[in-house]
Amino acid sequence: MSTTATFYHAGCPVCVAAEQGLAESLDPAKFKVDIVHLGQEKSRVEEAERAGVKSVPAMVIGGQVYHINHGADLAALKA
Amino acid sequence: MSTTATFYHAGCPVCVAAEQGLAESLDPAKFKVDIVHLGQEKSRVEEAERAGVKSVPAMVIGGQVYHINHGADLAALKA
Repeated sequence: MSTTATFYHAGCPVCVAAEQGLAESLDPAKFKVDIVHLGQEKSRVEEAERAGVKSVPAMVIGGQVYHINHGADLAALKA
Repeated sequence: MSTTATFYHAGCPVCVAAEQGLAESLDPAKFKVDIVHLGQEKSRVEEAERAGVKSVPAMVIGGQVYHINHGADLAALKA
């Protein structure tokens, strides 16, 4: 059974590096990676916020939030 | 051929969560994960610093540093 790992980003260079370096490096036998561009999917900003995401890029796995480096604050994406 | 992913931590709760949630989630077909406890392996603090690690937990993959959340500044581990 695979767990969903949700990777939230905003297309920034820091985000792209984290996507290629980490999000795409998860074990495909264990995880289904859902990549969400919050700049393009504004409707999911609230979902990210509820999950505890404060900045992007961030990965949410099993309810845990992992902020990876710092590209942009989530607040900036709500504007 | 597998790439080494080095996960630097200091035993803090934030570090343990990142280790279990992310470091152990990498694709074993692609990565060999080297887990380094900088509190116990002080001699490797300098190596982490050279790689660009500013705080732990952090993962270094192919020369890229990914700081994951924030447990402790590297400077605090040098004291």
